[in-house]
Amino acid sequence: MPAKSPVIVDLKFIPEEVEAALAGAFPGREVIDLADPAHQERDLSGIDYAVVWKSAPDLFSRAPDLKVVFSGGAGVDHVLTLPGLPDVPLVRFVDRTLTTRMSEWVMMQCLLHLRQHRAYEALAKKHEWRDLSQPEAADVTVGIMGMGVLGQDAARKLAAMGFKVIGWSRSKRVIEGVETYDAAGLDAFLGRTDFLVGLLPLTPDTRGIFNAALFAKLSRNGPFGAPVFINAGRGGSQVEADILECLDSGVLGGASLDVFEREPLSPESRFWDMPNVYVTPHVAASSDVRALFVHVEHQIARFESGLPLEHVVDKVAGY
Amino acid sequence: MPAKSPVIVDLKFIPEEVEAALAGAFPGREVIDLADPAHQERDLSGIDYAVVWKSAPDLFSRAPDLKVVFSGGAGVDHVLTLPGLPDVPLVRFVDRTLTTRMSEWVMMQCLLHLRQHRAYEALAKKHEWRDLSQPEAADVTVGIMGMGVLGQDAARKLAAMGFKVIGWSRSKRVIEGVETYDAAGLDAFLGRTDFLVGLLPLTPDTRGIFNAALFAKLSRNGPFGAPVFINAGRGGSQVEADILECLDSGVLGGASLDVFEREPLSPESRFWDMPNVYVTPHVAASSDVRALFVHVEHQIARFESGLPLEHVVDKVAGY
Ligand SMILES: NC(=O)c1ccc[n+]([C@@H]2O[C@H](COP(=O)([O-])OP(=O)(O)OC[C@H]3O[C@@H](n4cnc5c(N)ncnc54)[C@H](OP(=O)(O)O)[C@@H]3O)[C@@H](O)[C@H]2O)c1
Ligand SMILES: NC(=O)c1ccc[n+]([C@@H]2O[C@H](COP(=O)([O-])OP(=O)(O)OC[C@H]3O[C@@H](n4cnc5c(N)ncnc54)[C@H](OP(=O)(O)O)[C@@H]3O)[C@@H](O)[C@H]2O)c1
Repeated sequence: MPAKSPVIVDLKFIPEEVEAALAGAFPGREVIDLADPAHQERDLSGIDYAVVWKSAPDLFSRAPDLKVVFSGGAGVDHVLTLPGLPDVPLVRFVDRTLTTRMSEWVMMQCLLHLRQHRAYEALAKKHEWRDLSQPEAADVTVGIMGMGVLGQDAARKLAAMGFKVIGWSRSKRVIEGVETYDAAGLDAFLGRTDFLVGLLPLTPDTRGIFNAALFAKLSRNGPFGAPVFINAGRGGSQVEADILECLDSGVLGGASLDVFEREPLSPESRFWDMPNVYVTPHVAASSDVRALFVHVEHQIARFESGLPLEHVVDKVAGY
Repeated sequence: MPAKSPVIVDLKFIPEEVEAALAGAFPGREVIDLADPAHQERDLSGIDYAVVWKSAPDLFSRAPDLKVVFSGGAGVDHVLTLPGLPDVPLVRFVDRTLTTRMSEWVMMQCLLHLRQHRAYEALAKKHEWRDLSQPEAADVTVGIMGMGVLGQDAARKLAAMGFKVIGWSRSKRVIEGVETYDAAGLDAFLGRTDFLVGLLPLTPDTRGIFNAALFAKLSRNGPFGAPVFINAGRGGSQVEADILECLDSGVLGGASLDVFEREPLSPESRFWDMPNVYVTPHVAASSDVRALFVHVEHQIARFESGLPLEHVVDKVAGY
């Protein structure tokens, strides 16, 4: 029996978490962690597998014989845009922990806006005890763009918390308790949406989709008047100049952004300090590195025993 | 047929909300809103009903003939301590909107602590893009003290979001997916609790229950080490000097307080500015005034047609 192929690991995550998760991972198989300077010049030819998150652009020229590429996260835009992506299956990360973490973030952001958190923080800063008129979740319609693994879980949980929830995706999805729209129903969907949640992948079709023209179509009949934009999909789907302009002019009443056109977000960005804007540094649903390696091990085992890989990306659709 | 008895309304809520809700309420019945200065000297004898929230202490001497007293909120400590409470049924407010609002608040506070919101806000203030190690909900055990109408709803929703949830109440409650303890199981319950949520009524038995001795028994094995205290029951159940001391010494790692020993909270209080403390001005679950009047109308209709009143308080137990 030939020796098992090594696995290349190139994950721009918290280094200590990767290191800790590598202990005991991939039993019987060499792990080549590119974070280790010892591997800087290492010959990567003949290696079958790579697990990557924001690799250096020379990865595929250094490792020309990959048979499967694994994305370290749910999104794959960071892989699809790497030069020289080989014509082999690209497997994305789908995992309970990732899904529930994203729903935590989405739920928290919806509640922060619903419960007027920033207004209460401003009162607290003045040591002022005063209650504000308070709508309940059922008064707010949350519209989710992107009803895949993440959108569906968030939708179910938001509905269970009492929000009205509607969803939009390329093809129409059927989800209990959630009214859904397909691509053609976008305007009708937007016209009902008070809190817009973006959980779309970045593809040629979704690039720049969150722009001023779209924000202008959102509902202004919600309890807070102006709609709120919440995005944890990808920054490339949003036009930040438009978001800023819409926040300034009142077309948007607030925002929660976990993703940005350029990451890290520039220290010069106005988003950091805007009164009703919450910024998080692309942490809505960080991959649990241990769970990621378990998933990769599992898919490699399937692959080597001739079973079909799961969560394979459609490279034409781009997700 | 004798004319229908008027209803006394004495609600220290947002005045505009009470006024708006009174339009059309109690058809065919006079409403005596004590917020209206015209009623300051009004003779209240012979009147059957009063709906009250934080009444002046002379209410029951001015209205000696009440047949039913309705609390404007879920709690009744503010009525039970009024001088001269007549020996007639005291009905508390139980309502879907109130319950779901409380769960919104509890969920948001648990997520704020889980997702290290204050730490991310501090980074944002410095325009610093950095991710923190992030446990997920399943790594945290939320222990709820008070598993009544509100505690049970919060427990179900927190469990659905992925938190481990345990509950404690005077009598043992059976709730799917939630391990529960009765009064005798307090220490075992506390030893497992990372985030402690208080949803207890204020009674002689619960006064001062949240004190240093209790906090010292909470789990320190959670992902954040120090436990967090979240209270939306009643301020009289907490010993604020102990909370401050435990926050200072690290026995508690954070807190969310909606209720206080004295309300409004003094502008001098240190709570307003503490790094991992969230203060809200007793708004976790404000009564929806329209829903309150519908509930009171419904109970009056039952009472006048000889049906038993619902949600009658046990004055000996105090809730
Ligand atoms: N911020 C973070 O920490 C973080 C973490 C993980 C993931 N993410 C992002 O979240 C994205 C979604 O993840 P997922 O696992 O839910 O992906 P998924 O299961 O592939 O779902 C994608 C959803 O978007 C819809 N969609 C794609 N292109 C569309 C278009 N042009 N028009 C309309 N709808 C379109 C899909 O429609 P169909 O249902 O018709 O296919 C599907 O409903 C990822 O791609 C990633 O970018 C962010
Ligand atoms: N901050 C706000 O905006 C706000 C809004 C509404 C209500 N509240 C507060 O929330 C409280 C709870 O409301 P609720 O509708 O859930 O009340 P509830 O249905 O009467 O439930 C009270 C719970 O507390 C338990 N309990 C009472 N005394 C106890 C004791 N000595 N030891 C152990 N457990 C005890 C009860 O035990 P059993 O199950 O054995 O009876 C029950 O589980 C209200 O009383 C009010 O003070 C606050």
